[in-house]
Amino acid sequence: MILAPGARLGILGGGQLGRMLALAAARLGLEVHIFTDEADSPAARVASHTVCAPYSDEAALADFARGVDAITFEFENIPAASAQMLVAAGACVRPGPASLITSQDRLEEKRFLNRLGIPTAAFAPVDSAKDLAGALQITGLPAILKTRRLGYDGKGQARLRALEDAPAAFASLGGAPAILEAHIPFVREVSIIAARSPDGHLAPYDLSENTHENGVLATSICPAASGPQTRALAAEYAARLAHELDYVGIFAIEFFELADGGLLANEWAPRVHNSGHWTADACRTGQFEQHVRAVCGWPLGDPARLSSARMHNLLGQSAQDWAHWAGQPNARLWLYGKRAARDGRKMGHVTLLNPGGQLMAPPDR
Amino acid sequence: MILAPGARLGILGGGQLGRMLALAAARLGLEVHIFTDEADSPAARVASHTVCAPYSDEAALADFARGVDAITFEFENIPAASAQMLVAAGACVRPGPASLITSQDRLEEKRFLNRLGIPTAAFAPVDSAKDLAGALQITGLPAILKTRRLGYDGKGQARLRALEDAPAAFASLGGAPAILEAHIPFVREVSIIAARSPDGHLAPYDLSENTHENGVLATSICPAASGPQTRALAAEYAARLAHELDYVGIFAIEFFELADGGLLANEWAPRVHNSGHWTADACRTGQFEQHVRAVCGWPLGDPARLSSARMHNLLGQSAQDWAHWAGQPNARLWLYGKRAARDGRKMGHVTLLNPGGQLMAPPDR
Repeated sequence: MILAPGARLGILGGGQLGRMLALAAARLGLEVHIFTDEADSPAARVASHTVCAPYSDEAALADFARGVDAITFEFENIPAASAQMLVAAGACVRPGPASLITSQDRLEEKRFLNRLGIPTAAFAPVDSAKDLAGALQITGLPAILKTRRLGYDGKGQARLRALEDAPAAFASLGGAPAILEAHIPFVREVSIIAARSPDGHLAPYDLSENTHENGVLATSICPAASGPQTRALAAEYAARLAHELDYVGIFAIEFFELADGGLLANEWAPRVHNSGHWTADACRTGQFEQHVRAVCGWPLGDPARLSSARMHNLLGQSAQDWAHWAGQPNARLWLYGKRAARDGRKMGHVTLLNPGGQLMAPPDR
Repeated sequence: MILAPGARLGILGGGQLGRMLALAAARLGLEVHIFTDEADSPAARVASHTVCAPYSDEAALADFARGVDAITFEFENIPAASAQMLVAAGACVRPGPASLITSQDRLEEKRFLNRLGIPTAAFAPVDSAKDLAGALQITGLPAILKTRRLGYDGKGQARLRALEDAPAAFASLGGAPAILEAHIPFVREVSIIAARSPDGHLAPYDLSENTHENGVLATSICPAASGPQTRALAAEYAARLAHELDYVGIFAIEFFELADGGLLANEWAPRVHNSGHWTADACRTGQFEQHVRAVCGWPLGDPARLSSARMHNLLGQSAQDWAHWAGQPNARLWLYGKRAARDGRKMGHVTLLNPGGQLMAPPDR
């Protein structure tokens, strides 16, 4: 299925990722329809048509699908059943429902990655408080207890430093099904962003190095300080995952890099990713355009990086610094049009090109 | 007047220039409202709100103005009276009405340019057939007869090779008030795109070299083959024009370059310009973002060029070549979402970065 210019691309999700996808699609002459459960969403304001309904509303989804030529999504917490219903109804959904199933539940996700030979931290399911002692036998201490579903940006997590922390940690997650993960003494956090086309062509970006604050991505720097073997390993894992799922579009895998250069996957995301925002400014083809190309069955663009880059998220009130960033010659500013700057909310980001100095990790390729 | 992110920017005009302005504004977190006389326009599909009414409908315009924080336009044939009415009603209109008055009538335009010491081809007004003989005394032969108003892309023009052509030429323009212009034996056609901020800062782009086919821009190449004195002259003329009008935003001046490196202005446009599309792909800050920055009172971005560039317009059916261009690693493709690919209609464009080879004019700076 190839979508020619003028075709209608449906996006499930109305946040900033949907907005940036919509802008990229518009540049390529496509018409964008948004399906979102949020009134007055960032993506809706740059789309030609918007449906506002819950993601579980199968009738509204089916109606939305009839109005577009293909459907993609901007976040992985779309109910898999909704995606499966759309496929059953004949819609072209890219990436497919399997990508949701293997990414929206942390336990299924880690089992899936391990099955592909992509290592992760030791983990164990925790369905009730009585599972905790056995799970700690597997992970050791310290460990992190996470809800299996609907966690993002550090939400739904509790750190365990001692056995006595366990009951309170489980209670703090509201008793939801959880997973206990070993704490990893990593050298750095890195992520790979890659695209796969319907015909199986893979286009990985250079590995980037990420820092988090309070569980939320703060910066991504490219290139990462990782060595060539680590970079090759990340690309190999990305290829394995994408081909296993017959994946179409952009995806991300976040890793812990160990002292020996090895990588443990932390999570993967079947969508454009915050740690890939730098690609839109520093590469020949950015992740948003690349995702649109893949979903539409176009040739993938060249992912080559033309510059080193450092991306800062603008969280909450820090987006008030827009005038400062707008005045920096090497800064590319993106603001998402969100009305309320709540603490920690992703309001925008800025990419510094060729930031130079000690923050950049040589060698550039 | 500074528009902060979240503010509403009104654009008069719904074509591809309005669409590309809207995309740039959205990236900066602004909300875009479109006023257009065209149903289902390219710009409306990426804006949050659209009013569809004639540009002479002052009530609709006044209502539109109340819903936005500033107003700009994407083409110069907005009635100057409409812009003046908006200013009188207290709206922030950037650039101001004087820019329309001095650009939408070819006779006023040339008089304005000459008054600033910016030379043009010899010209004379032709209000009726009996003015033709006298006008030809001023211009000599060959000459070009053009309607004073509403001409674009070679429309409303007739070439005179001999005195006997004159009556038929005037009749072919429907008897509208016209201007006769001397034919210029130019070495090349070039244009300068520049921005001016409300505080008088000027940011010119590198001079580009343009070719036309059937009166329509076909390609723009940057850098132009022009020498340093010619490039400096173009920048000097741009500064003179902008400061005279207390101009705010992007504007373009098209020139004929003579064998001695001198420049005769052909026309100027108070808006983003087709011959500046390459800036969006080859410069740190493209013309669309720069216009939004200027109109919103933001610091101007760096206009520095990072690459040589060649822009091709995709006219009419040639937009069917989209898949070819999408497959070129150094091509950046823009498609405007127009429904009908009529002959010669601007459907999109493609910018080739670092195209290399004999088409590029050394030296790159």
